[in-house]
Amino acid sequence: MTSQIMRKLAAEWVGTAFLLGTIVGSGIMADALSDDVAVTLLGHSIPTGAILFVMISLLGPISGAHFNPAVTMVFALRRDISIILALGYVGAQIAGGIVGVFIAHAMFELPILQIATTVRTGSAQWLAEIVATFGLVLTILGGLRYRPSAVPALVGFYITAAIWFTASTSLANPAVTLARAITDTFTGIRPLDAPAFIIAQLVGAALCFIVARWLLSEPNKHPE
Amino acid sequence: MTSQIMRKLAAEWVGTAFLLGTIVGSGIMADALSDDVAVTLLGHSIPTGAILFVMISLLGPISGAHFNPAVTMVFALRRDISIILALGYVGAQIAGGIVGVFIAHAMFELPILQIATTVRTGSAQWLAEIVATFGLVLTILGGLRYRPSAVPALVGFYITAAIWFTASTSLANPAVTLARAITDTFTGIRPLDAPAFIIAQLVGAALCFIVARWLLSEPNKHPE
Amino acid sequence: MTSQIMRKLAAEWVGTAFLLGTIVGSGIMADALSDDVAVTLLGHSIPTGAILFVMISLLGPISGAHFNPAVTMVFALRRDISIILALGYVGAQIAGGIVGVFIAHAMFELPILQIATTVRTGSAQWLAEIVATFGLVLTILGGLRYRPSAVPALVGFYITAAIWFTASTSLANPAVTLARAITDTFTGIRPLDAPAFIIAQLVGAALCFIVARWLLSEPNKHPE
Amino acid sequence: MTSQIMRKLAAEWVGTAFLLGTIVGSGIMADALSDDVAVTLLGHSIPTGAILFVMISLLGPISGAHFNPAVTMVFALRRDISIILALGYVGAQIAGGIVGVFIAHAMFELPILQIATTVRTGSAQWLAEIVATFGLVLTILGGLRYRPSAVPALVGFYITAAIWFTASTSLANPAVTLARAITDTFTGIRPLDAPAFIIAQLVGAALCFIVARWLLSEPNKHPE
Repeated sequence: MTSQIMRKLAAEWVGTAFLLGTIVGSGIMADALSDDVAVTLLGHSIPTGAILFVMISLLGPISGAHFNPAVTMVFALRRDISIILALGYVGAQIAGGIVGVFIAHAMFELPILQIATTVRTGSAQWLAEIVATFGLVLTILGGLRYRPSAVPALVGFYITAAIWFTASTSLANPAVTLARAITDTFTGIRPLDAPAFIIAQLVGAALCFIVARWLLSEPNKHPE
Repeated sequence: MTSQIMRKLAAEWVGTAFLLGTIVGSGIMADALSDDVAVTLLGHSIPTGAILFVMISLLGPISGAHFNPAVTMVFALRRDISIILALGYVGAQIAGGIVGVFIAHAMFELPILQIATTVRTGSAQWLAEIVATFGLVLTILGGLRYRPSAVPALVGFYITAAIWFTASTSLANPAVTLARAITDTFTGIRPLDAPAFIIAQLVGAALCFIVARWLLSEPNKHPE
Repeated sequence: MTSQIMRKLAAEWVGTAFLLGTIVGSGIMADALSDDVAVTLLGHSIPTGAILFVMISLLGPISGAHFNPAVTMVFALRRDISIILALGYVGAQIAGGIVGVFIAHAMFELPILQIATTVRTGSAQWLAEIVATFGLVLTILGGLRYRPSAVPALVGFYITAAIWFTASTSLANPAVTLARAITDTFTGIRPLDAPAFIIAQLVGAALCFIVARWLLSEPNKHPE
Repeated sequence: MTSQIMRKLAAEWVGTAFLLGTIVGSGIMADALSDDVAVTLLGHSIPTGAILFVMISLLGPISGAHFNPAVTMVFALRRDISIILALGYVGAQIAGGIVGVFIAHAMFELPILQIATTVRTGSAQWLAEIVATFGLVLTILGGLRYRPSAVPALVGFYITAAIWFTASTSLANPAVTLARAITDTFTGIRPLDAPAFIIAQLVGAALCFIVARWLLSEPNKHPE
């Protein structure tokens, strides 16, 4: 494995760790401080969008800053990344997400190892995940197509919005889903419910891949 | 109909669907989670501004990202778009808005078909809509004139502000108004009240078209 | 008076009207909706920063987008603007601010003509206004010096911050102060208290003018 | 001491003073206005991120806008700044921070001289400070490496996020820690607890210096 590939995997690992540290940590903090769940969601959605803007800006030039197996799958479908490297990315994302959750637990003096008990299931939630991931992939592919330097901000603002407009609070990411299965805090999801969420996410990403191939094929009229 | 025009209509349809999904979805979410209506409005105004920034960035290069019949009317008055295409845009916007509301209802397990019962009427509200739409069109025309690459951010921040400073919470968009007439949730507007709102929005847009023609005619001293 | 000068004055008038409409309107809205004054201040400070970003972006290329007699005074001290034109600007700003307050009252079905009764006085408040205006002028002069295209965002974010870190909630603007003397709502200031605020603002602006002349005289190492 | 060096020191002094004025002032304001601590944290984290964006934009071209002895240490380790100048920076930062706290107290009519009594200690808090400072230094070094013009926004958004995701609310700065030891308000930290925080911050910064040297050594594929 070359040093450049190791750096790519490390970037995916570090970025996903900070993402999960923020998702889970801000959820713990905001949940502890407020009795108003909408205030908690503000204290969770603003930091989550902010850290995505930061981490994609920093690590995008190294690995592309996917932090998300569904996004890596789309880039593999587009043949922008080899299957082998894609699998490495997914492994790094899952490992990074788990470490991020562990660090969040440690920072808040909670048991490191937990199993989520929050039920998140049903067809409405799955639809929400399809929509959330469809929109996320559209944001990334459209951003790369027309305004590549704005992608970090676009993803950050998209996720801040999607946390509010989807009934599932928009996990939209299989690595995030797995990592949130091992925290029994505000952002947890029962392990039993994770597979259906992940399937919905991959379906949303694949749908967007197909739609975007047609929708974004127009010549770029406003190059950056 | 050429493929390029189909993509333009699809972009208006998709963008307006995401806009309404966010407006209605975030309203349902924030309303359900909080007893403090100002907290609900934070949880509605921040995502709405954010999704506008995202969708205008992505789809602007394809269709111009109007998502709004009043804006399309202004571009038709400026002869930037043909009457025929403008009518197509308006149709796509209305259809997209309706689908966005349906998806929001489905994601939150609410009845798909609803009729709003929230009364929004009176001359003060109509004035608010004139002001809100005047400002929105000024933001778009001034942005295009002096800082085209900032238009997505300008519209997003403008709407986040306008939701707070107008008594009507700034619908400022006939397609949004029609779509919000079919949701009996936080952001609904009684169908009986929609026509006056739409008239006020078109008046505000037309007034700004006239004012901007003079105000923005100065040579650009700070080209981007 | 040439057409170009009329447009400059109109830009100051429109921009200050939208600024006051937002300051006063968002204050009325947020105050009506919440019992938690910090939530109200969020619903007031975020829109106020956002509208500044928008209006300075749009109108800066026309008039410089001062919207503030203290800022105009600094530009007159720097001889960037003639005394005559500066006086015209101040008149347009004051007139615009008053109209903005009237429109806010009308949109919320309140009496158009009001006199504020909120007491804002004392040396701590005056110090806060000196600090707030010093920082605002530093933001503008430093921004123009090193990152001119970022000035709209810098001023918007600065004011959002200053509303929170100053005990006076940072009026930092004589035209805003006068306009807020004629609204007996969340953002009002008793007319009796306005003169001392205005003096403090002019002192803060003048102090920053002196400091900035030295501090910002270094060669620009990071030109945009 | 040359005039240019004096300006650098003044820039560090002014920037750190505004930073502390905002941290402590917004904490006092938000704490006084709300019973919901998460609302208070919103009213503290948003202004703190905003003022960092502003002050780094303005003063970065003069001094680099460290405002933080841990950051200055990293630049000294990189030999970007001499040891002598680094010591001057640290002195200016500490002095600026103290003055910022004094001004915040004066603006809110509190006793100028205070000693914090808020206990912030324990290994979980120290871990949080290591993580927070590691992330801050990664943000700065990665930003400088790949997107230098975005550094002010990156640092602002990072800190807004870190205030929420770290159990310690992310001081991440020895000068901030010392200054917060002399305010017995929302953001205070007991002087007894400050040394361990500072050590944790320096450890986090040093760790990131080592990691970044490898992680960010890849050729820049997306130059700005």
